[in-house]
Amino acid sequence: MNTVALKCSQIADAIGAELRGDAEILITSISSVETALEGSITFITGKKFLAPLRATQASAVILPNAFAHETTATRLVMENPYLGYAKLTQLWSAHLFGTTTEHIHATATVAESATLAEGVAVAAQAVIEPNALIGANVVVGSGAYIGEGVTIGVGTVLHPNSTVLRGCSIGDHCEIHSGAVIGADGFGFAPSSDGWQKIHQLGTVTIGNRVSIGACTTVDRGALEDTVISDGVILDNHIQVAHNVHIGRNTAIAGCTGIAGSTIIGANCRIGGAVSIVGHINICDDVLITANSFVNRSVLAPGSYSSGFPLETSAQWRKNAVRLQRLDELSRQVGKLKP
Amino acid sequence: MNTVALKCSQIADAIGAELRGDAEILITSISSVETALEGSITFITGKKFLAPLRATQASAVILPNAFAHETTATRLVMENPYLGYAKLTQLWSAHLFGTTTEHIHATATVAESATLAEGVAVAAQAVIEPNALIGANVVVGSGAYIGEGVTIGVGTVLHPNSTVLRGCSIGDHCEIHSGAVIGADGFGFAPSSDGWQKIHQLGTVTIGNRVSIGACTTVDRGALEDTVISDGVILDNHIQVAHNVHIGRNTAIAGCTGIAGSTIIGANCRIGGAVSIVGHINICDDVLITANSFVNRSVLAPGSYSSGFPLETSAQWRKNAVRLQRLDELSRQVGKLKP
Amino acid sequence: MNTVALKCSQIADAIGAELRGDAEILITSISSVETALEGSITFITGKKFLAPLRATQASAVILPNAFAHETTATRLVMENPYLGYAKLTQLWSAHLFGTTTEHIHATATVAESATLAEGVAVAAQAVIEPNALIGANVVVGSGAYIGEGVTIGVGTVLHPNSTVLRGCSIGDHCEIHSGAVIGADGFGFAPSSDGWQKIHQLGTVTIGNRVSIGACTTVDRGALEDTVISDGVILDNHIQVAHNVHIGRNTAIAGCTGIAGSTIIGANCRIGGAVSIVGHINICDDVLITANSFVNRSVLAPGSYSSGFPLETSAQWRKNAVRLQRLDELSRQVGKLKP
Repeated sequence: MNTVALKCSQIADAIGAELRGDAEILITSISSVETALEGSITFITGKKFLAPLRATQASAVILPNAFAHETTATRLVMENPYLGYAKLTQLWSAHLFGTTTEHIHATATVAESATLAEGVAVAAQAVIEPNALIGANVVVGSGAYIGEGVTIGVGTVLHPNSTVLRGCSIGDHCEIHSGAVIGADGFGFAPSSDGWQKIHQLGTVTIGNRVSIGACTTVDRGALEDTVISDGVILDNHIQVAHNVHIGRNTAIAGCTGIAGSTIIGANCRIGGAVSIVGHINICDDVLITANSFVNRSVLAPGSYSSGFPLETSAQWRKNAVRLQRLDELSRQVGKLKP
Repeated sequence: MNTVALKCSQIADAIGAELRGDAEILITSISSVETALEGSITFITGKKFLAPLRATQASAVILPNAFAHETTATRLVMENPYLGYAKLTQLWSAHLFGTTTEHIHATATVAESATLAEGVAVAAQAVIEPNALIGANVVVGSGAYIGEGVTIGVGTVLHPNSTVLRGCSIGDHCEIHSGAVIGADGFGFAPSSDGWQKIHQLGTVTIGNRVSIGACTTVDRGALEDTVISDGVILDNHIQVAHNVHIGRNTAIAGCTGIAGSTIIGANCRIGGAVSIVGHINICDDVLITANSFVNRSVLAPGSYSSGFPLETSAQWRKNAVRLQRLDELSRQVGKLKP
Repeated sequence: MNTVALKCSQIADAIGAELRGDAEILITSISSVETALEGSITFITGKKFLAPLRATQASAVILPNAFAHETTATRLVMENPYLGYAKLTQLWSAHLFGTTTEHIHATATVAESATLAEGVAVAAQAVIEPNALIGANVVVGSGAYIGEGVTIGVGTVLHPNSTVLRGCSIGDHCEIHSGAVIGADGFGFAPSSDGWQKIHQLGTVTIGNRVSIGACTTVDRGALEDTVISDGVILDNHIQVAHNVHIGRNTAIAGCTGIAGSTIIGANCRIGGAVSIVGHINICDDVLITANSFVNRSVLAPGSYSSGFPLETSAQWRKNAVRLQRLDELSRQVGKLKP
């Protein structure tokens, strides 16, 4: 790792901000507005950061025009400072870590019939099976597994110990984090007098471009047709996507959420953490579901949806929980009372 | 991968159906009844598929005798068409992918004292530790780990990057999917004035025959005695089975369900996804638990059980949630009202 | 594996108990008080085990002084028998399995610039990247991955197929179980007109001493500052710790719990399984949260907290769930009734 020192002018150029103040100041760290020191750059996104902005010791601040007069630090003015911050982290990361250079490690196992475009890096102990097609500048981390006939698009990164199984296809500029498993068999079994008979899962997983799959997230292959993750989808860690689920463009799903089989989720949805979504339902575009909800039915209109029992002291919860189990009775009782 | 083309007669033989119609038609795909085209085979399981059956373009249909007169396609008649479909996927899979051939990859690490029966395949970068006993025709995927003294039965498949730790035993014809971890230490610690003291977990995991363990599912080793998964159990992805749990024959558990320590689950249960089951309880045979339930007590009678807060708009949920936290008070208030 | 046979006197010395009875008896198994046979040692922790204690066939019992007169078996008397049992399992484990001996397996990949202190064992197919610092007697399991610049303290064990990514630091005497992922990118994205823009995660993960991280548990790296797991924390399997979470000393968290970003959890908390904790909140020291709770707000006073809908028959649940969705209406109706 290197240390990073960038001029304010370089940063402003990279993030598309208008620079006001000293363009030559060297920035050596990125910090929150409260903890920033000399040499730091920070960003503010709204009014609630005004007081810390006035007090900050940051050398530079990414901020909207409306707040540009509130500080004597160098200002990088832009409409969306949070996006500016995102672009800054990308610039920083490139300087801090450099870029992975093309290299097939001696301990990697790459099948002869696999096709690797230029610039592909394959780290130690990684495995690429026959007939895989690996796009330009793909990075295959240590211990990652790429199955037979898998297709990986340009610039995609597979982190160490991730797994992409037979026949799946992943688009350009995706990230598959460590421990993720793409293309395990869907949970399909037919009951019989001899117990459960496996339904072999003959579909695959199709993942679009600019998709992020979190650590230990699983996306199962389809039964006959494919499981589909559209362009721009971001999935956090520990998510379960069952067979034949479809997730629409730019939908974001937070950690520990499970989606049962054949459910269709629209575009631009935001689904909180630890949500459980039953199978064979539809969730339309532009739906927000708050954390810990139980999605037990289709959601056919955009908007915000919730469920869940808020936290209480255990003593209070015990009393309420007992009453909850008699709620139907209570309601009937109330119905009989005279108004 | 190959393409598949099978005669209707071959399929009927393989799945045990009575063929009515053209035995020679070549089938080149399996489809749902709605999407089937010429060359497809499909299946119908009940009355609700009658209309699509009448309209289907499928060349062949697996169906029960009662519906055999409803189509002019070639019919494969059997009592349980869904089971027929399961058997067909097995046949298809064998033709599509072939079978893994015996081979110890040059990069695999197999201890000298491990015993491999005939027909065992060990893929790249896999590790088999000393004194492991690997049954005939077992497939050990790339990067899979088999610990010291592990026993694996005939025909079992360990998918890439799965982990089976020291001393565990797995029966015949099981599947362990990628990212699964069998035999990690149970979560046992004793409090002390110096913090938590680890209770070393001296049991193992015993898994029966025809068991399926999903991707990223964990089954912990027992504290003193073993954690037990019986014959025919099917576990989906992201399931946590804590130490000393027992799961009875042919029980099916859907994804993201967690089972705390020492809980005993009977045979032929069906447990939905995202269920949380507390420790040290009993669930008898033939229990159905619906998705997202909180199993906070033993279940001693067969039947269907549920819990959970159904989805609402966030606005409505906020109102109801506030009231829920005062439900005991409300109930007392109602109790005082005159009927 | 070996068989174990230890004299009662050896055990008493190792666990710090006072021996009363035959010091020479050979102990060959550890058992629960109910299942113990001749040659077994067992332990009892309280009054509820008095009846089985009186009937036990165990050759030796770890127990508190108050119960020492209740058995004719050899007694190992100490204040905290459960702690004694924990220490006994440690002794037993060392005799049963021996200790891993220093060895760099021929198939492991260790970067030249990595520094390994004495006694380090690196198993087959493991990878240690440049500039990693590995403390004395560390055990790196098969297929484990240690990223660039990672620091691992003395005596820590990384189990097979665990992953520690770039720049993270882990203290002394920790255990990282199989499938765990330390230091994956936090889930940080800024919305833009071109979809989600990744916020590169520039922090790392800092883990203290004597920390246990369960199988398939994920701890994400911080956005700018680090995610912090303090000394003595124990995390079960399938836990998600998002970026910039802090967990205080000796806090214990059971399986399948998720903690969203930037939440601060105090010391000595006990958090049950399948709990979901929202982001950006504070939980103070000494908080107990029962299984399956939804922690939707800060907890600023020590004590026990709960939420969740207890299990019912599905028939009863359906009735109550419908009423729950009209609870606000019911409450208003009751408010209008005459007392």
